[in-house]
Amino acid sequence: MPPVVATVEGIRQAVGDARRRGLTVGLVPTMGALHAGHLSLCRAARAETGFVVATIFVNPTQFGPNEDFARYPRQLEIDRELCGQAGVDAIFAPAVPTMYPANFHTFVEVLDLSAGLCGASRPGHFRGVTTVVLKLFNIVGADTAYFGQKDFQQARLIRQLVHDLNVPLQVQICPIVRESDGLAMSSRNQYLDPTQRRHAVALYQALQAAQRTIEEGERDPEAIRGLLVRRIEDTPGAILDYAAVVDADRLQPLPRLHGEVLLALAVKFGATRLIDNILVQVRAEQRPMK
Amino acid sequence: MPPVVATVEGIRQAVGDARRRGLTVGLVPTMGALHAGHLSLCRAARAETGFVVATIFVNPTQFGPNEDFARYPRQLEIDRELCGQAGVDAIFAPAVPTMYPANFHTFVEVLDLSAGLCGASRPGHFRGVTTVVLKLFNIVGADTAYFGQKDFQQARLIRQLVHDLNVPLQVQICPIVRESDGLAMSSRNQYLDPTQRRHAVALYQALQAAQRTIEEGERDPEAIRGLLVRRIEDTPGAILDYAAVVDADRLQPLPRLHGEVLLALAVKFGATRLIDNILVQVRAEQRPMK
Repeated sequence: MPPVVATVEGIRQAVGDARRRGLTVGLVPTMGALHAGHLSLCRAARAETGFVVATIFVNPTQFGPNEDFARYPRQLEIDRELCGQAGVDAIFAPAVPTMYPANFHTFVEVLDLSAGLCGASRPGHFRGVTTVVLKLFNIVGADTAYFGQKDFQQARLIRQLVHDLNVPLQVQICPIVRESDGLAMSSRNQYLDPTQRRHAVALYQALQAAQRTIEEGERDPEAIRGLLVRRIEDTPGAILDYAAVVDADRLQPLPRLHGEVLLALAVKFGATRLIDNILVQVRAEQRPMK
Repeated sequence: MPPVVATVEGIRQAVGDARRRGLTVGLVPTMGALHAGHLSLCRAARAETGFVVATIFVNPTQFGPNEDFARYPRQLEIDRELCGQAGVDAIFAPAVPTMYPANFHTFVEVLDLSAGLCGASRPGHFRGVTTVVLKLFNIVGADTAYFGQKDFQQARLIRQLVHDLNVPLQVQICPIVRESDGLAMSSRNQYLDPTQRRHAVALYQALQAAQRTIEEGERDPEAIRGLLVRRIEDTPGAILDYAAVVDADRLQPLPRLHGEVLLALAVKFGATRLIDNILVQVRAEQRPMK
């Protein structure tokens, strides 16, 4: 089982030892409550780097005042077991005051890209994410960090952060891992009651229906967005937070669909907020022959 | 003469070569137009580290729209000569688009500490400073970075940034270097006409008078601030921007002076804004015996 390290000095020591043995270093930042999505990131890191650090830290600065920070699932011993099975070499699991001492003042923000989608629904969320992720990058000093595509906007922001601030590290985005019915894996799925859980597959089904409609030739983003909205509105117990059809790079609306397009949904079932997305490569529109 | 490197890859290569030779790395970030203050930082880096990188970059994001970005002195060949004399091993002098490509989105902010003093007079200034300094830290990957005490608030913010974001680097603050009459060295001193230059020593003289008054027993910050204000108001051509008497750690006013106290001035002569400061160690107040 991988050791659990709680101090900055301790994890730097472990990484330093690995470097002296000539190993490259992979980093998988998580908030714990690990599921198959996280473990796919650990396995990707295991395959590509010599020493794999998973971090487990429920980051208070990325939760809003009425969000689920206090009840977010914490299960360090189970996570440790899972990390061991996925080939993780060390777990960095700091306490909150280790990451945010009393006189903490500094924040990192990726403007524009953090404004829409989840950023609009969760003010301050991405400032907390980018700040803690940069701290973890600086603490661990990895060669490559692994993130999941389920948090697409987060991954996009972190790529931008690394690029803009010249962080000497590669960012790898790994595919979404799904339950057998198609629901995207999430630590928050365990909040769902059996009825909500059954209906939660609506997110993926709506995204798939939208993708099919694009593949059949639809290029009007509002038509696609309308389809997503109706699908969610037709789902018992589902409250739409947002449905977005945007350019995958700029996360901005397009007048007509082309290039890499992100279809993204955020939906609440009771107090539980779920997100999901699909990337669609959209061919240029065929103009009719005259 | 040290080589001038304009690309991120180029300076990383030079630093990587030095590391492979077993050398530690010192960093002196500057905006060029080097004077004896900058050179004292280079010499400190030379004495303490094996490979010294000076950066010369007039950083647009730290200038306000009506400030002196366009006319800020640029003299790369002279600076290169001076760097060579001070023992610098390599100069990193990137172009603006190298540091800020078209789709740049990310900023670093040290809240609270950046709000007062120069932060109040120059909105956005410190956000630009902390962002570019973190970029330079990430690009160069130094062990120690050297800053001058003249920009006290900047140095304080950078220490905080390094602490809060776990940047793996030491920050050294070096003493203010002064002209023979006491005027703090600054690249902006060359903007002064001969009359302004003669009167510019008023900043240091006011700070010294305030320090003497504290040493004689005054513990009322408003009395000290009043003295600074009057001294500047009595100086021909001087327009006070701010006079501050604050706790040197928090940069906040104190009800009574004690501990490490910062006396700081910002004064305009025409369009030229000068700053200066003194740190005073203030003994606890003696309560009268009953």
